[in-house]
Amino acid sequence: MGSPAFVAATEAALADFFTSRRATVDQLGPSFVEAAAALELFVLRGGKRTRPAFAWIGWQGAGGDADGPDAEAVLSACAALELVQACALIHDDIIDSSRTRRRFPTVHVDFEQRHRERGWAGDSAHFGTSVAILIGDLALAWADDMVHASGLDNAAIARFAPVWALMRTEVLGGQLLDINGHAGSDESVEAALRINRYKTAAYTVERPLHLGAAIADADPALVEAYREFGTDIGIAFQLRDDLLGVFGDPEVTGKPSGDDLREGKRTVLLAEALQRADATDPLAAKLLRTSIGTDLGADDVERLRALLTELGAVDDVERRIADLTDRGLAAIETSSATPSAKEKLRAMALAATRRTA
Amino acid sequence: MGSPAFVAATEAALADFFTSRRATVDQLGPSFVEAAAALELFVLRGGKRTRPAFAWIGWQGAGGDADGPDAEAVLSACAALELVQACALIHDDIIDSSRTRRRFPTVHVDFEQRHRERGWAGDSAHFGTSVAILIGDLALAWADDMVHASGLDNAAIARFAPVWALMRTEVLGGQLLDINGHAGSDESVEAALRINRYKTAAYTVERPLHLGAAIADADPALVEAYREFGTDIGIAFQLRDDLLGVFGDPEVTGKPSGDDLREGKRTVLLAEALQRADATDPLAAKLLRTSIGTDLGADDVERLRALLTELGAVDDVERRIADLTDRGLAAIETSSATPSAKEKLRAMALAATRRTA
Repeated sequence: MGSPAFVAATEAALADFFTSRRATVDQLGPSFVEAAAALELFVLRGGKRTRPAFAWIGWQGAGGDADGPDAEAVLSACAALELVQACALIHDDIIDSSRTRRRFPTVHVDFEQRHRERGWAGDSAHFGTSVAILIGDLALAWADDMVHASGLDNAAIARFAPVWALMRTEVLGGQLLDINGHAGSDESVEAALRINRYKTAAYTVERPLHLGAAIADADPALVEAYREFGTDIGIAFQLRDDLLGVFGDPEVTGKPSGDDLREGKRTVLLAEALQRADATDPLAAKLLRTSIGTDLGADDVERLRALLTELGAVDDVERRIADLTDRGLAAIETSSATPSAKEKLRAMALAATRRTA
Repeated sequence: MGSPAFVAATEAALADFFTSRRATVDQLGPSFVEAAAALELFVLRGGKRTRPAFAWIGWQGAGGDADGPDAEAVLSACAALELVQACALIHDDIIDSSRTRRRFPTVHVDFEQRHRERGWAGDSAHFGTSVAILIGDLALAWADDMVHASGLDNAAIARFAPVWALMRTEVLGGQLLDINGHAGSDESVEAALRINRYKTAAYTVERPLHLGAAIADADPALVEAYREFGTDIGIAFQLRDDLLGVFGDPEVTGKPSGDDLREGKRTVLLAEALQRADATDPLAAKLLRTSIGTDLGADDVERLRALLTELGAVDDVERRIADLTDRGLAAIETSSATPSAKEKLRAMALAATRRTA
């Protein structure tokens, strides 16, 4: 999502931060050195740096000068979002019992394997989970530390802090809603939209833009426009993701075809289909409820895809994406954001909502 | 550890903070309300508020006025330490597979039970762990938010931030050392002392005092004295705890007699005993290694106690406690701390190192 130059600059800022921790880390001894190195590797291994990119554009759109004297500090504060994200991913991988991420073992699996290879005492899986909980905590704590060490002046940090607070509460709230909704089998469109709003939109687009605006001390009308854009485009992004999770080409997405159906992911697409089936086609509703979340073959996936389409759920979600994208773009067009920021946000919005992977 | 009036004031500050989050929490929906309520109950259910008490005394000892205009903000920032502690305890209870804390179910067990009672889908224990990971994360994030919302001025927050950063890194480091040492069976006195230093001393006494000093903008000599006192008294506190874990009266400590022996806790006491036995009494060393961490009967506990005493390990630890206490008290006596703070720190040091429970 960020340009190659921006991604490189973000990663350089993160690498500098890890270097700055080294003296403290070394003092804590070899097993802490190992844990901190695992976190560093995880953070620097890749990613689109989407959240820092939105924060950076939010700042520039509100008048921040990418060639000015504050730029380095702002970039570093924006990059700190990647540490919040590291905590979210590391802990999510425990919660989802995921074994791999980007083709590498997840952190808990990595430390489970180290424990086993060393022939250590106790349960290897429990050890791996324990270490990964603590490494995720470290990432969350270091995210703050990176903001404070960024070089932002005290007044900017004071403006940044309440938005940062909301963002973290919202993403944790979104994750809690997600696992509760899944366990409690809440099938409503409303519940799925609420998870999208907090777990994805607020955390990935709305609050990053808002953070950039807060650093720049933007006027309230621009903050409102950013938030409208962020909420709409963020939800549209997630809805596109949900469609790709069912209809995406495995060659392009890199995920097995129909993966979301097999995992039983509670998407707006599925909620909409269930609601329509309950009203018009009880047999279809039954089929959906008994097959989603089970070990589906290629034929089953094909049949469910056809059903989702026939029920009109796919059209509904496409319409939602189009409406949200229009509304989000309109909010930015009529805002006081700089022309260059408007152009970038427009491009990012279209990339996020019209993508095929 | 804090006086009853201080404990009440700390709890009032925490209750106010939770109230201030309510609007955000409500917006996130009922399952987030439930999680936030569980955290609030956990934090307000009790505790000695030791860390806020040291921070508060650290501030006063460096000239802070408990009746002055800044006192409320400082108290609130000090109370935020209880939220870091909530994260540490909630995540530790997962790591230690603890089922109860202060006679209530631990957070992960509580949510495991709720899941089961509701007949929800999936594995109840995994659900409980997942929710407790996220509630711990929330506590860690809210700890920062409470500092930022405390009313401390921006300059004080800027002085506070680097010490806060060190404290959190150190406690997470101490926990990582602890679980690595346990799994890897590091038996050295040095390893046990290092865990005491970071997991207990830095986190419980040294950095809280340092945080108070940072708010008050104390001179470096006083900071040094606080840190010396905090490290020494904090380690002595842990050594006393280790002795009580083996020799404490269950009627007074509330824990089963010899509990640490049964759990196989890697204490300085045990490390010292093993080192001495290796040098002088190989059979005793073997007995220690084969029995510590197993399901011991009352007779076994009695025999191991006698052995720890005969090997001189108990005397050694008592001597360490006495030396550390003397050195810590001397650092404070010769410092520029106010007479009233000196008196309180002396009393707290003696209470922490000479207690029977």
